[in-house]
Amino acid sequence: MLTLPALKADPRVAFAGAFDLRDEARVRFAVEFGVPAFETLDALLRSPDIDAVYIATPHELHAEQVIAALRAGKHVLVEKPMATSLADCARMERASAEAGKVLVVGPSHGFDAPVQVAAELVASGKYGAVRMVTALNFTDFIFRPRRSEELDSDRGGGVVYSQAAHHIDVVRRLVGLPVTSVRAVAANWDSSRSSEGAYTALMTFAAGAVASLTYSGYAHYDSDELLGWISELGYDKDPARYGEARKNLAALSSQDEIEAKLRRTYGAPDASANDALARYHEHFGFILLSCERADLKLSPKGLSIYGDAEREFLPIAPPELPRKEVIDEFVGACLGTRRPIHDGRWGFDTIACCVALLESSRRRTDVAPNRLLDTLSEKL
Amino acid sequence: MLTLPALKADPRVAFAGAFDLRDEARVRFAVEFGVPAFETLDALLRSPDIDAVYIATPHELHAEQVIAALRAGKHVLVEKPMATSLADCARMERASAEAGKVLVVGPSHGFDAPVQVAAELVASGKYGAVRMVTALNFTDFIFRPRRSEELDSDRGGGVVYSQAAHHIDVVRRLVGLPVTSVRAVAANWDSSRSSEGAYTALMTFAAGAVASLTYSGYAHYDSDELLGWISELGYDKDPARYGEARKNLAALSSQDEIEAKLRRTYGAPDASANDALARYHEHFGFILLSCERADLKLSPKGLSIYGDAEREFLPIAPPELPRKEVIDEFVGACLGTRRPIHDGRWGFDTIACCVALLESSRRRTDVAPNRLLDTLSEKL
Ligand SMILES: NC(=O)c1ccc[n+]([C@@H]2O[C@H](COP(=O)([O-])OP(=O)(O)OC[C@H]3O[C@@H](n4cnc5c(N)ncnc54)[C@H](O)[C@@H]3O)[C@@H](O)[C@H]2O)c1
Ligand SMILES: NC(=O)c1ccc[n+]([C@@H]2O[C@H](COP(=O)([O-])OP(=O)(O)OC[C@H]3O[C@@H](n4cnc5c(N)ncnc54)[C@H](O)[C@@H]3O)[C@@H](O)[C@H]2O)c1
Repeated sequence: MLTLPALKADPRVAFAGAFDLRDEARVRFAVEFGVPAFETLDALLRSPDIDAVYIATPHELHAEQVIAALRAGKHVLVEKPMATSLADCARMERASAEAGKVLVVGPSHGFDAPVQVAAELVASGKYGAVRMVTALNFTDFIFRPRRSEELDSDRGGGVVYSQAAHHIDVVRRLVGLPVTSVRAVAANWDSSRSSEGAYTALMTFAAGAVASLTYSGYAHYDSDELLGWISELGYDKDPARYGEARKNLAALSSQDEIEAKLRRTYGAPDASANDALARYHEHFGFILLSCERADLKLSPKGLSIYGDAEREFLPIAPPELPRKEVIDEFVGACLGTRRPIHDGRWGFDTIACCVALLESSRRRTDVAPNRLLDTLSEKL
Repeated sequence: MLTLPALKADPRVAFAGAFDLRDEARVRFAVEFGVPAFETLDALLRSPDIDAVYIATPHELHAEQVIAALRAGKHVLVEKPMATSLADCARMERASAEAGKVLVVGPSHGFDAPVQVAAELVASGKYGAVRMVTALNFTDFIFRPRRSEELDSDRGGGVVYSQAAHHIDVVRRLVGLPVTSVRAVAANWDSSRSSEGAYTALMTFAAGAVASLTYSGYAHYDSDELLGWISELGYDKDPARYGEARKNLAALSSQDEIEAKLRRTYGAPDASANDALARYHEHFGFILLSCERADLKLSPKGLSIYGDAEREFLPIAPPELPRKEVIDEFVGACLGTRRPIHDGRWGFDTIACCVALLESSRRRTDVAPNRLLDTLSEKL
């Protein structure tokens, strides 16, 4: 529902078929786009009209479906998180290399235009070495309607795979250096929603850079306040609508909760994608990037740059097409005109940071994501 | 200069004498208050008219002067940081116990009314267990005129002893539980100002609580923006005056820098303390305290409380007297009517966190401040 408007609006994308388990999604797709809605993934992957597949199923299905698509000779754009185990990520990355097909992990907020503009400015060296990123995001993630797996830590539920994957993508893109260690605490603060709903993490990078990432999905403070009340997706937000997520959820039984989620999913009678173009860029909370000679604060409208002598605001033109950056990167990679940043390796490294975050919280010590890779290759 | 207005305005305080190395400070004091300005600390400590001493000299003098004052039978209020080594803190704490005299470490922002009100609310259990504190402060600390020791890490310079001591006091007061470990990165980003000017720290507490503290003194981003442009001391701030600290400093040689600092110090011809009562409470940056059933955001005007169902603002009456909370606690302790929170033991534990922060940054691992105490007692 979130990426559909982007795919529809982008002239580089033509719909050639789809697959979903639910009848209502398939029926609606066939009607809306006048192309086949397949009964199985295999049938879809056998279609010669399809060059590339966008996979937006629940986390735990990503690995098998991505590998099947790559082996069938399709390029793949897969939703974050790439997968919920490093072994799966490694298999996906290998499948991409073996098939010679593109694998891009996205959309994630690491693609947001302000992140990319800031990353490029900083990489130019204009502000000296990057030293620190301060990133915080307070949302109502935990109280939106959820499937049970989304609240089951053993199946990749909770905010780490779903939300830290964004946070880490943003921070890695901005810093542009390998992550050397993660020290974190991730916890469940509410026994009625049984998975990690908040975390704080200190990530160190090569060359002494560091980032602090803090997230809470417990629907109390809303950090969109720090972004001029612009929502994560770039729309104006009404601060008066406090507490809605909890209120709506409190009215539902657990069966009703699943139905409430489905009501927002493609094919449901009153689910409609937001086709109104967002006025501002997407964002993932308050992000401040400190270099030796300037701090850069990201906003959905541009960058505030706090230099030695002066402060300036660098506007970024509003989005022309939603999530255009993702399609630019994916289409460019498919056509061979552009090397993707968020490829299988990138996705693997981000998941290594998620695994490290959870393991650090359990073991109460630093965990080096690249040491997890060693452990993995010993196992494989 | 910052505490003088408080001392002058408070009816519970009468000036009975002072000592300073500089003639101009002594002369001015004798003229302003009509009481003796002593030539030595010993002479001051022999005065029978003096019950209590406020020690506001450079960090490295605190230990000897505090111990001398306690042994002379005076109660002592000593500026933060208590000292710059744990052995000194231990000696100071012991001297207080042996003399049966009060030792309070303050002012620090841990005394600020919003911190105390929030701490008491949370301790009441009203919002469930405290889980996380998010604290960030971006200032121009490093570019204010400094003595050379203030930029010498080996002598307690840099932002850790001067500024993390505040941050840690605030966070410890809010959480109200023992600190179990500190993982931090503290660094120098500017070779012209040779000490740590920024840090980020993840502190864990008993019962699983955690805090994230981030500080930069590099005069780029100013987090007073997040506090409605109210300054650290509770005055309105003009956001248009960007870059002043660096600009002023750039015009000075290093000798001039020392003189510039002295020009703001008591006794200098044009140094005048700000006697205008601050309209708002003091603060130490953006502070968000997350409990199970609410987030509390501190501001110089009160607390924003983001509960399960609603958000409310709890105003805190503006300050009646500056730094009244400090004098309340100190005078109450001297009169035996109140047990001080910020006593020698408290100060010791805060410095243990500062030492742990620096050591964690050097060793790149968690450091348990209470383990530092073990090491210390083995040494003593
Ligand atoms: N990038 C973003 O902004 C963003 C936002 C939300 C979700 N996501 C990601 O998208 C993915 C899906 O999340 P969601 O909340 O939309 O989940 P969802 O439960 O709504 O499922 C998405 C779709 O997958 C279908 N599906 C389920 N099992 C299937 C199967 N075996 N074969 C084919 N289709 C199947 C469902 O019917 C549904 O239409 C997750 O990985 C999530 O992290 C990303
Ligand atoms: N709580 C706060 O808000 C706050 C703010 C600023 C400073 N401080 C603390 O106050 C202390 C002093 O800092 P400062 O910046 O005012 O320093 P400073 O250099 O201005 O020195 C303070 C005073 O001590 C005097 N002095 C120096 N050596 C002395 C000696 N041997 N005997 C007697 N007097 C001596 C100086 O002449 C000066 O008048 C530090 O520990 C600092 O951390 C606290």
